[in-house]
Amino acid sequence: MKKMEMLYQGKAKKVFATDDPGLVIVDYTDNATALNGLKKGTIEGKGVINNRMSNHMMRLLEQKGIPTQYVEELSDRETLVKKVKIVPLEVIVRNIAAGSFSKRYGVEEGKELAISTIEFSYKNDDLGDPLINDYHALALGLCTAEELETIKKYAFAVNDMMKEYLLKLGIILVDFKLEFGKLPDGTIVLADEISPDTCRFWDSETHAHLDKDLFRRDLGGAEDAYQEVMRRLMGE
Amino acid sequence: MKKMEMLYQGKAKKVFATDDPGLVIVDYTDNATALNGLKKGTIEGKGVINNRMSNHMMRLLEQKGIPTQYVEELSDRETLVKKVKIVPLEVIVRNIAAGSFSKRYGVEEGKELAISTIEFSYKNDDLGDPLINDYHALALGLCTAEELETIKKYAFAVNDMMKEYLLKLGIILVDFKLEFGKLPDGTIVLADEISPDTCRFWDSETHAHLDKDLFRRDLGGAEDAYQEVMRRLMGE
Repeated sequence: MKKMEMLYQGKAKKVFATDDPGLVIVDYTDNATALNGLKKGTIEGKGVINNRMSNHMMRLLEQKGIPTQYVEELSDRETLVKKVKIVPLEVIVRNIAAGSFSKRYGVEEGKELAISTIEFSYKNDDLGDPLINDYHALALGLCTAEELETIKKYAFAVNDMMKEYLLKLGIILVDFKLEFGKLPDGTIVLADEISPDTCRFWDSETHAHLDKDLFRRDLGGAEDAYQEVMRRLMGE
Repeated sequence: MKKMEMLYQGKAKKVFATDDPGLVIVDYTDNATALNGLKKGTIEGKGVINNRMSNHMMRLLEQKGIPTQYVEELSDRETLVKKVKIVPLEVIVRNIAAGSFSKRYGVEEGKELAISTIEFSYKNDDLGDPLINDYHALALGLCTAEELETIKKYAFAVNDMMKEYLLKLGIILVDFKLEFGKLPDGTIVLADEISPDTCRFWDSETHAHLDKDLFRRDLGGAEDAYQEVMRRLMGE
Protein backbone atom coordinates (compact mmCIF):
# COMPACT_ATOMS: atom_id res chain seq x y z
CA MET A 1 0.00 0.00 0.00
CA LYS A 2 1.57 3.24 -1.17
CA LYS A 3 0.99 6.45 0.84
CA MET A 4 0.35 9.24 -1.65
CA GLU A 5 -0.74 12.91 -1.52
CA MET A 6 -2.48 14.45 1.50
CA LEU A 7 -6.21 14.74 0.84
CA TYR A 8 -7.30 16.53 3.95
CA GLN A 9 -5.88 18.03 7.12
CA GLY A 10 -8.25 17.82 10.08
CA LYS A 11 -7.75 19.30 13.55
CA ALA A 12 -5.96 16.21 14.90
CA LYS A 13 -5.54 13.91 11.89
CA LYS A 14 -4.27 14.01 8.34
CA VAL A 15 -5.71 11.86 5.59
CA PHE A 16 -3.62 10.58 2.67
CA ALA A 17 -4.55 8.94 -0.61
CA THR A 18 -3.22 5.47 -1.44
CA ASP A 19 -2.78 3.65 -4.74
CA ASP A 20 -6.19 2.01 -4.05
CA PRO A 21 -8.99 4.54 -4.73
CA GLY A 22 -11.19 2.85 -2.12
CA LEU A 23 -8.67 3.17 0.73
CA VAL A 24 -7.01 6.07 2.56
CA ILE A 25 -4.43 6.34 5.31
CA VAL A 26 -5.25 8.27 8.48
CA ASP A 27 -2.27 9.79 10.30
CA TYR A 28 -2.85 10.75 13.95
CA THR A 29 -1.02 13.86 15.25
CA ASP A 30 -0.57 15.12 18.82
CA ASN A 31 -2.54 18.30 18.03
CA ALA A 32 -5.40 19.04 20.38
CA THR A 33 -8.13 21.61 19.86
CA ALA A 34 -11.17 22.62 21.85
CA LEU A 35 -13.98 25.18 21.74
CA ASN A 36 -14.54 24.60 18.02
CA GLY A 37 -10.87 25.15 17.26
CA LEU A 38 -10.45 28.39 19.26
CA LYS A 39 -8.15 26.66 21.72
CA LYS A 40 -5.08 24.91 20.33
CA GLY A 41 -2.28 22.87 21.86
CA THR A 42 -0.66 19.48 21.92
CA ILE A 43 -0.97 16.43 24.13
CA GLU A 44 2.32 14.59 23.79
CA GLY A 45 1.93 11.03 22.58
CA LYS A 46 -1.80 11.45 21.97
CA GLY A 47 -1.58 10.50 18.30
CA VAL A 48 -0.10 7.10 19.09
CA ILE A 49 -2.61 6.41 21.85
CA ASN A 50 -5.67 7.52 19.90
CA ASN A 51 -4.62 5.57 16.84
CA ARG A 52 -4.08 2.33 18.71
CA MET A 53 -7.01 2.72 21.10
CA SER A 54 -9.45 3.66 18.38
CA ASN A 55 -8.37 0.70 16.26
CA HIS A 56 -8.79 -1.57 19.27
CA MET A 57 -12.36 -0.33 19.80
CA MET A 58 -13.21 -0.52 16.09
CA ARG A 59 -12.06 -4.15 15.93
CA LEU A 60 -14.18 -4.98 18.99
CA LEU A 61 -17.23 -3.27 17.53
CA GLU A 62 -16.77 -4.99 14.15
CA GLN A 63 -16.76 -8.34 15.97
CA LYS A 64 -20.05 -7.36 17.60
CA GLY A 65 -21.68 -6.55 14.28
CA ILE A 66 -21.12 -2.81 13.80
CA PRO A 67 -19.67 -2.14 10.33
CA THR A 68 -16.73 0.25 10.51
CA GLN A 69 -14.30 2.01 8.23
CA TYR A 70 -11.30 0.22 9.80
CA VAL A 71 -9.02 -1.96 7.67
CA GLU A 72 -5.54 -2.29 9.18
CA GLU A 73 -3.13 -0.58 11.58
CA LEU A 74 -0.03 0.36 9.59
CA SER A 75 2.14 1.94 12.28
CA ASP A 76 1.93 3.67 15.66
CA ARG A 77 0.22 6.66 14.10
CA GLU A 78 -1.09 5.37 10.77
CA THR A 79 -4.15 3.33 9.94
CA LEU A 80 -5.58 2.15 6.64
CA VAL A 81 -9.32 2.78 6.41
CA LYS A 82 -12.03 2.54 3.77
CA LYS A 83 -12.62 5.83 2.02
CA VAL A 84 -16.06 7.13 2.96
CA LYS A 85 -18.21 10.18 2.39
CA ILE A 86 -18.74 11.52 5.90
CA VAL A 87 -22.39 12.15 6.88
CA PRO A 88 -22.20 15.78 8.08
CA LEU A 89 -23.58 15.01 11.54
CA GLU A 90 -21.74 14.67 14.81
CA VAL A 91 -23.59 11.96 16.69
CA ILE A 92 -23.44 12.43 20.44
CA VAL A 93 -24.64 9.80 22.89
CA ARG A 94 -24.95 10.69 26.57
CA ASN A 95 -25.40 8.60 29.70
CA ILE A 96 -24.54 11.23 32.30
CA ALA A 97 -24.99 15.01 32.13
CA ALA A 98 -21.73 16.85 31.34
CA GLY A 99 -20.22 19.55 29.18
CA SER A 100 -22.49 21.37 26.72
CA PHE A 101 -25.54 19.38 27.84
CA SER A 102 -25.12 20.55 31.44
CA LYS A 103 -24.60 24.14 30.38
CA ARG A 104 -27.39 24.20 27.82
CA TYR A 105 -30.07 22.69 30.07
CA GLY A 106 -28.87 23.76 33.52
CA VAL A 107 -28.26 20.20 34.72
CA GLU A 108 -25.48 19.53 37.21
CA GLU A 109 -22.51 17.68 35.71
CA GLY A 110 -22.55 14.08 36.90
CA LYS A 111 -26.32 13.63 37.05
CA GLU A 112 -27.30 10.28 35.55
CA LEU A 113 -29.85 10.74 32.77
CA ALA A 114 -33.20 8.94 33.01
CA ILE A 115 -32.55 7.54 29.52
CA SER A 116 -29.46 7.50 27.32
CA THR A 117 -29.86 10.29 24.80
CA ILE A 118 -28.70 10.83 21.26
CA GLU A 119 -28.25 14.19 19.59
CA PHE A 120 -26.90 15.48 16.31
CA SER A 121 -24.75 18.48 15.53
CA TYR A 122 -24.56 19.75 11.99
CA LYS A 123 -20.84 19.46 11.11
CA ASN A 124 -20.18 22.99 9.90
CA ASP A 125 -17.32 24.99 11.41
CA ASP A 126 -18.63 28.32 10.10
CA LEU A 127 -21.91 27.77 11.94
CA GLY A 128 -20.20 26.37 15.07
CA ASP A 129 -21.58 22.82 14.67
CA PRO A 130 -25.11 23.72 15.79
CA LEU A 131 -27.46 21.22 17.42
CA ILE A 132 -29.87 19.85 14.83
CA ASN A 133 -32.81 17.47 15.08
CA ASP A 134 -34.03 14.67 12.79
CA TYR A 135 -36.52 16.84 10.91
CA HIS A 136 -33.97 19.60 10.28
CA ALA A 137 -31.36 17.12 9.05
CA LEU A 138 -33.86 15.69 6.58
CA ALA A 139 -35.15 19.14 5.54
CA LEU A 140 -31.56 20.20 4.78
CA GLY A 141 -30.89 16.94 2.92
CA LEU A 142 -27.96 15.96 5.16
CA CYS A 143 -28.99 12.29 4.98
CA THR A 144 -32.06 10.15 4.31
CA ALA A 145 -34.58 9.01 6.92
CA GLU A 146 -33.34 5.43 6.48
CA GLU A 147 -29.70 6.47 7.03
CA LEU A 148 -30.71 8.38 10.14
CA GLU A 149 -32.43 5.32 11.59
CA THR A 150 -29.37 3.17 10.86
CA ILE A 151 -27.08 5.73 12.49
CA LYS A 152 -29.24 5.88 15.62
CA LYS A 153 -29.43 2.09 15.86
CA TYR A 154 -25.64 1.75 15.54
CA ALA A 155 -24.93 4.62 17.95
CA PHE A 156 -27.08 3.15 20.72
CA ALA A 157 -25.57 -0.32 20.10
CA VAL A 158 -22.05 1.16 20.35
CA ASN A 159 -23.09 2.79 23.62
CA ASP A 160 -24.38 -0.46 25.10
CA MET A 161 -21.24 -2.37 24.14
CA MET A 162 -18.72 0.28 25.14
CA LYS A 163 -20.44 1.08 28.45
CA GLU A 164 -20.29 -2.55 29.54
CA TYR A 165 -16.76 -3.13 28.21
CA LEU A 166 -15.30 -0.01 29.83
CA LEU A 167 -16.99 -0.45 33.19
CA LYS A 168 -15.09 -3.72 33.64
CA LEU A 169 -11.93 -1.63 33.24
CA GLY A 170 -13.04 0.86 35.88
CA ILE A 171 -14.14 3.48 33.36
CA ILE A 172 -17.55 5.17 33.23
CA LEU A 173 -18.62 6.14 29.73
CA VAL A 174 -20.18 9.57 30.34
CA ASP A 175 -20.77 10.57 26.73
CA PHE A 176 -19.11 10.32 23.33
CA LYS A 177 -19.17 11.59 19.77
CA LEU A 178 -19.33 9.35 16.72
CA GLU A 179 -19.18 10.08 13.02
CA PHE A 180 -20.53 7.88 10.28
CA GLY A 181 -19.60 7.61 6.63
CA LYS A 182 -21.05 6.15 3.47
CA LEU A 183 -19.23 3.64 1.29
CA PRO A 184 -19.62 4.01 -2.50
CA ASP A 185 -22.42 1.39 -2.40
CA GLY A 186 -24.33 3.48 0.18
CA THR A 187 -23.55 1.31 3.22
CA ILE A 188 -23.36 3.31 6.44
CA VAL A 189 -20.24 2.52 8.49
CA LEU A 190 -18.79 3.86 11.72
CA ALA A 191 -15.98 6.28 10.86
CA ASP A 192 -13.59 8.74 12.55
CA GLU A 193 -12.19 7.65 15.92
CA ILE A 194 -13.11 6.50 19.43
CA SER A 195 -10.63 7.91 21.95
CA PRO A 196 -10.28 10.24 24.94
CA ASP A 197 -10.54 13.04 22.35
CA THR A 198 -14.07 12.02 21.44
CA CYS A 199 -15.36 10.38 24.64
CA ARG A 200 -15.78 11.51 28.24
CA PHE A 201 -14.23 8.76 30.39
CA TRP A 202 -14.44 9.01 34.18
CA ASP A 203 -12.65 6.75 36.62
CA SER A 204 -15.42 4.66 38.19
CA GLU A 205 -14.02 5.05 41.73
CA THR A 206 -12.80 8.65 41.86
CA HIS A 207 -14.75 10.15 38.93
CA ALA A 208 -11.42 11.67 37.80
CA HIS A 209 -11.43 12.81 34.16
CA LEU A 210 -9.55 10.47 31.83
CA ASP A 211 -10.18 12.46 28.68
CA LYS A 212 -9.78 15.70 26.75
CA ASP A 213 -11.64 17.71 29.42
CA LEU A 214 -8.24 17.88 31.19
CA PHE A 215 -6.98 19.88 28.20
CA ARG A 216 -10.26 21.69 27.48
CA ARG A 217 -10.54 22.93 31.07
CA ASP A 218 -6.81 23.48 31.72
CA LEU A 219 -6.77 20.88 34.50
CA GLY A 220 -3.40 19.39 33.53
CA GLY A 221 -2.38 15.75 33.42
CA ALA A 222 -3.87 14.95 30.01
CA GLU A 223 -0.80 12.91 28.93
CA ASP A 224 -0.99 10.70 32.02
CA ALA A 225 -4.73 10.24 31.69
CA TYR A 226 -4.51 9.15 28.05
CA GLN A 227 -1.72 6.70 29.02
CA GLU A 228 -3.88 5.37 31.87
CA VAL A 229 -6.84 4.67 29.58
CA MET A 230 -4.46 2.96 27.13
CA ARG A 231 -3.05 0.83 29.93
CA ARG A 232 -6.50 -0.29 31.10
CA LEU A 233 -7.73 -1.05 27.58
CA MET A 234 -4.66 -2.73 26.18
CA GLY A 235 -2.76 -3.84 29.26
CA GLU A 236 0.24 -1.65 28.51
CA MET B 1 -67.78 34.08 36.09
CA LYS B 2 -65.93 36.26 38.61
CA LYS B 3 -62.47 37.62 37.73
CA MET B 4 -60.27 37.22 40.80
CA GLU B 5 -56.59 37.64 41.70
CA MET B 6 -53.82 37.72 39.09
CA LEU B 7 -52.03 34.36 38.99
CA TYR B 8 -49.32 35.13 36.49
CA GLN B 9 -47.98 37.99 34.42
CA GLY B 10 -46.45 36.90 31.15
CA LYS B 11 -44.64 39.01 28.57
CA ALA B 12 -47.82 39.90 26.66
CA LYS B 13 -50.66 38.42 28.73
CA LYS B 14 -51.92 38.33 32.28
CA VAL B 15 -53.73 35.37 33.76
CA PHE B 16 -56.41 35.72 36.44
CA ALA B 17 -58.12 33.20 38.67
CA THR B 18 -61.91 32.82 38.56
CA ASP B 19 -64.39 31.41 41.05
CA ASP B 20 -64.15 28.11 39.15
CA PRO B 21 -60.84 26.36 40.02
CA GLY B 22 -60.76 24.72 36.57
CA LEU B 23 -61.00 28.00 34.62
CA VAL B 24 -58.83 31.11 34.30
CA ILE B 25 -59.16 34.39 32.42
CA VAL B 26 -56.42 35.45 30.00
CA ASP B 27 -56.05 39.20 29.50
CA TYR B 28 -54.16 40.29 26.36
CA THR B 29 -52.01 43.45 26.62
CA ASP B 30 -50.34 45.52 23.88
CA ASN B 31 -46.87 44.68 25.25
CA ALA B 32 -44.43 43.29 22.73
CA THR B 33 -41.09 41.68 23.49
CA ALA B 34 -38.43 40.07 21.35
CA LEU B 35 -34.97 38.52 21.71
CA ASN B 36 -36.02 36.56 24.80
CA GLY B 37 -37.37 39.70 26.49
CA LEU B 38 -34.31 41.92 25.86
CA LYS B 39 -36.31 44.14 23.50
CA LYS B 40 -39.50 45.66 24.85
CA GLY B 41 -42.20 47.88 23.35
CA THR B 42 -45.87 48.09 22.50
CA ILE B 43 -47.89 47.44 19.37
CA GLU B 44 -51.03 49.52 19.77
CA GLY B 45 -54.21 47.48 19.57
CA LYS B 46 -52.30 44.18 19.46
CA GLY B 47 -54.01 42.79 22.56
CA VAL B 48 -57.45 43.09 20.99
CA ILE B 49 -56.34 41.61 17.68
CA ASN B 50 -54.43 38.69 19.18
CA ASN B 51 -57.24 37.85 21.56
CA ARG B 52 -59.91 37.79 18.86
CA MET B 53 -57.73 36.20 16.16
CA SER B 54 -56.40 33.48 18.44
CA ASN B 55 -59.91 32.62 19.62
CA HIS B 56 -61.06 32.46 16.00
CA MET B 57 -58.26 30.01 15.16
CA MET B 58 -58.83 27.94 18.31
CA ARG B 59 -62.54 27.57 17.48
CA LEU B 60 -61.67 26.47 13.94
CA LEU B 61 -59.12 23.94 15.19
CA GLU B 62 -61.55 22.55 17.80
CA GLN B 63 -64.07 21.98 15.00
CA LYS B 64 -61.38 20.04 13.12
CA GLY B 65 -60.66 17.79 16.09
CA ILE B 66 -57.77 19.47 17.92
CA PRO B 67 -58.59 19.78 21.63
CA THR B 68 -57.81 23.27 22.92
CA GLN B 69 -57.85 25.24 26.13
CA TYR B 70 -60.41 27.72 24.73
CA VAL B 71 -63.78 28.18 26.44
CA GLU B 72 -65.31 31.60 25.70
CA GLU B 73 -64.38 35.12 24.60
CA LEU B 74 -65.39 37.47 27.42
CA SER B 75 -64.40 40.84 25.97
CA ASP B 76 -62.10 42.44 23.40
CA ARG B 77 -59.07 41.51 25.48
CA GLU B 78 -60.30 38.78 27.81
CA THR B 79 -60.90 35.09 27.22
CA LEU B 80 -62.00 32.33 29.51
CA VAL B 81 -59.82 29.21 29.14
CA LYS B 82 -59.38 25.88 30.88
CA LYS B 83 -56.65 25.96 33.48
CA VAL B 84 -53.76 23.78 32.32
CA LYS B 85 -50.29 22.85 33.42
CA ILE B 86 -48.13 24.06 30.55
CA VAL B 87 -45.74 21.45 29.08
CA PRO B 88 -42.40 23.34 29.24
CA LEU B 89 -41.72 23.05 25.52
CA GLU B 90 -42.13 25.64 22.80
CA VAL B 91 -43.24 23.67 19.77
CA ILE B 92 -42.09 25.26 16.53
CA VAL B 93 -43.29 24.09 13.12
CA ARG B 94 -41.58 25.40 9.99
CA ASN B 95 -42.53 25.31 6.32
CA ILE B 96 -40.07 27.90 5.02
CA ALA B 97 -36.62 28.83 6.37
CA ALA B 98 -36.66 32.05 8.41
CA GLY B 99 -35.46 33.62 11.65
CA SER B 100 -33.41 31.47 14.02
CA PHE B 101 -33.51 28.48 11.66
CA SER B 102 -31.92 30.49 8.85
CA LYS B 103 -29.25 31.90 11.17
CA ARG B 104 -28.50 28.61 12.92
CA TYR B 105 -28.13 26.51 9.76
CA GLY B 106 -26.99 29.12 7.24
CA VAL B 107 -30.09 28.77 5.06
CA GLU B 108 -31.39 31.78 3.16
CA GLU B 109 -34.63 33.15 4.54
CA GLY B 110 -37.49 32.22 2.21
CA LYS B 111 -36.16 28.84 1.11
CA GLU B 112 -38.95 26.27 1.12
CA LEU B 113 -38.02 23.27 3.28
CA ALA B 114 -38.00 19.78 1.73
CA ILE B 115 -40.26 18.66 4.59
CA SER B 116 -42.17 20.58 7.24
CA THR B 117 -40.12 20.39 10.43
CA ILE B 118 -40.94 20.40 14.11
CA GLU B 119 -38.58 21.44 16.86
CA PHE B 120 -38.79 21.96 20.59
CA SER B 121 -37.32 24.66 22.80
CA TYR B 122 -37.07 24.07 26.51
CA LYS B 123 -39.17 26.89 28.02
CA ASN B 124 -36.67 28.33 30.47
CA ASP B 125 -35.90 32.06 30.39
CA ASP B 126 -32.70 31.70 32.44
CA LEU B 127 -31.30 29.28 29.85
CA GLY B 128 -32.60 31.29 26.87
CA ASP B 129 -35.16 28.67 25.74
CA PRO B 130 -32.55 26.32 24.25
CA LEU B 131 -33.32 23.93 21.41
CA ILE B 132 -33.99 20.46 22.79
CA ASN B 133 -34.69 17.13 21.13
CA ASP B 134 -37.05 14.28 22.02
CA TYR B 135 -34.44 12.27 23.92
CA HIS B 136 -33.34 15.28 25.99
CA ALA B 137 -36.93 16.22 26.82
CA LEU B 138 -37.57 12.69 28.06
CA ALA B 139 -34.24 12.48 29.92
CA LEU B 140 -35.09 15.71 31.75
CA GLY B 141 -38.62 14.48 32.48
CA LEU B 142 -40.30 17.43 30.74
CA CYS B 143 -43.05 15.13 29.44
CA THR B 144 -43.68 11.47 28.64
CA ALA B 145 -42.98 9.76 25.32
CA GLU B 146 -46.72 9.37 24.78
CA GLU B 147 -47.35 13.08 25.42
CA LEU B 148 -44.56 13.98 23.00
CA GLU B 149 -46.13 11.85 20.26
CA THR B 150 -49.52 13.48 20.86
CA ILE B 151 -47.97 16.95 20.74
CA LYS B 152 -46.22 16.20 17.45
CA LYS B 153 -49.35 14.74 15.90
CA TYR B 154 -51.43 17.78 16.89
CA ALA B 155 -48.73 20.27 15.82
CA PHE B 156 -48.44 18.82 12.31
CA ALA B 157 -52.26 18.64 12.03
CA VAL B 158 -52.50 22.31 13.07
CA ASN B 159 -49.91 23.13 10.41
CA ASP B 160 -51.84 21.33 7.68
CA MET B 161 -55.11 23.03 8.58
CA MET B 162 -53.72 26.52 9.10
CA LYS B 163 -51.54 26.45 6.00
CA GLU B 164 -54.53 25.64 3.80
CA TYR B 165 -56.89 28.04 5.57
CA LEU B 166 -54.49 30.99 5.46
CA LEU B 167 -53.40 30.51 1.87
CA LYS B 168 -56.99 31.12 0.76
CA LEU B 169 -56.69 34.49 2.51
CA GLY B 170 -53.46 35.32 0.71
CA ILE B 171 -51.21 34.45 3.67
CA ILE B 172 -48.25 32.07 3.61
CA LEU B 173 -47.68 30.30 6.93
CA VAL B 174 -43.88 30.40 7.19
CA ASP B 175 -43.54 29.03 10.72
CA PHE B 176 -45.25 29.22 14.10
CA LYS B 177 -44.87 28.42 17.77
CA LEU B 178 -47.41 26.44 19.77
CA GLU B 179 -47.64 25.58 23.43
CA PHE B 180 -49.53 22.68 24.89
CA GLY B 181 -50.98 22.13 28.35
CA LYS B 182 -52.28 19.27 30.44
CA LEU B 183 -55.75 19.20 31.97
CA PRO B 184 -56.07 17.71 35.48
CA ASP B 185 -57.05 14.35 33.90
CA GLY B 186 -53.83 14.34 31.84
CA THR B 187 -55.40 15.26 28.49
CA ILE B 188 -53.05 17.25 26.25
CA VAL B 189 -54.69 20.37 24.79
CA LEU B 190 -53.48 23.20 22.58
CA ALA B 191 -52.83 26.24 24.81
CA ASP B 192 -51.41 29.77 24.62
CA GLU B 193 -52.25 31.74 21.45
CA ILE B 194 -52.07 31.72 17.66
CA SER B 195 -51.42 35.23 16.37
CA PRO B 196 -48.90 37.41 14.50
CA ASP B 197 -46.92 37.33 17.78
CA THR B 198 -46.44 33.57 17.49
CA CYS B 199 -46.58 32.94 13.73
CA ARG B 200 -44.65 34.21 10.72
CA PHE B 201 -47.24 35.29 8.17
CA TRP B 202 -46.10 36.49 4.73
CA ASP B 203 -48.35 38.05 2.11
CA SER B 204 -48.57 35.43 -0.64
CA GLU B 205 -48.11 38.00 -3.42
CA THR B 206 -45.51 40.41 -2.05
CA HIS B 207 -43.97 38.25 0.73
CA ALA B 208 -44.39 41.31 3.00
CA HIS B 209 -44.18 40.47 6.70
CA LEU B 210 -47.56 40.48 8.43
CA ASP B 211 -46.24 39.58 11.86
CA LYS B 212 -44.01 40.46 14.82
CA ASP B 213 -40.86 40.46 12.67
CA LEU B 214 -41.86 44.07 11.83
CA PHE B 215 -41.33 44.90 15.51
CA ARG B 216 -38.45 42.45 16.09
CA ARG B 217 -36.48 43.88 13.17
CA ASP B 218 -37.53 47.54 13.56
CA LEU B 219 -39.19 47.55 10.14
CA GLY B 220 -42.20 49.61 11.26
CA GLY B 221 -45.85 49.14 10.34
CA ALA B 222 -46.61 46.40 12.85
CA GLU B 223 -49.98 47.94 13.83
CA ASP B 224 -51.14 48.04 10.20
CA ALA B 225 -49.93 44.49 9.52
CA TYR B 226 -51.76 43.06 12.54
CA GLN B 227 -54.91 44.91 11.44
CA GLU B 228 -54.50 43.54 7.92
CA VAL B 229 -54.28 39.93 9.12
CA MET B 230 -57.34 40.54 11.30
CA ARG B 231 -59.23 41.95 8.31
CA ARG B 232 -58.40 38.95 6.13
CA LEU B 233 -59.27 36.40 8.80
CA MET B 234 -62.41 37.96 10.19
CA GLY B 235 -63.54 40.29 7.42
CA GLU B 236 -63.14 43.44 9.49
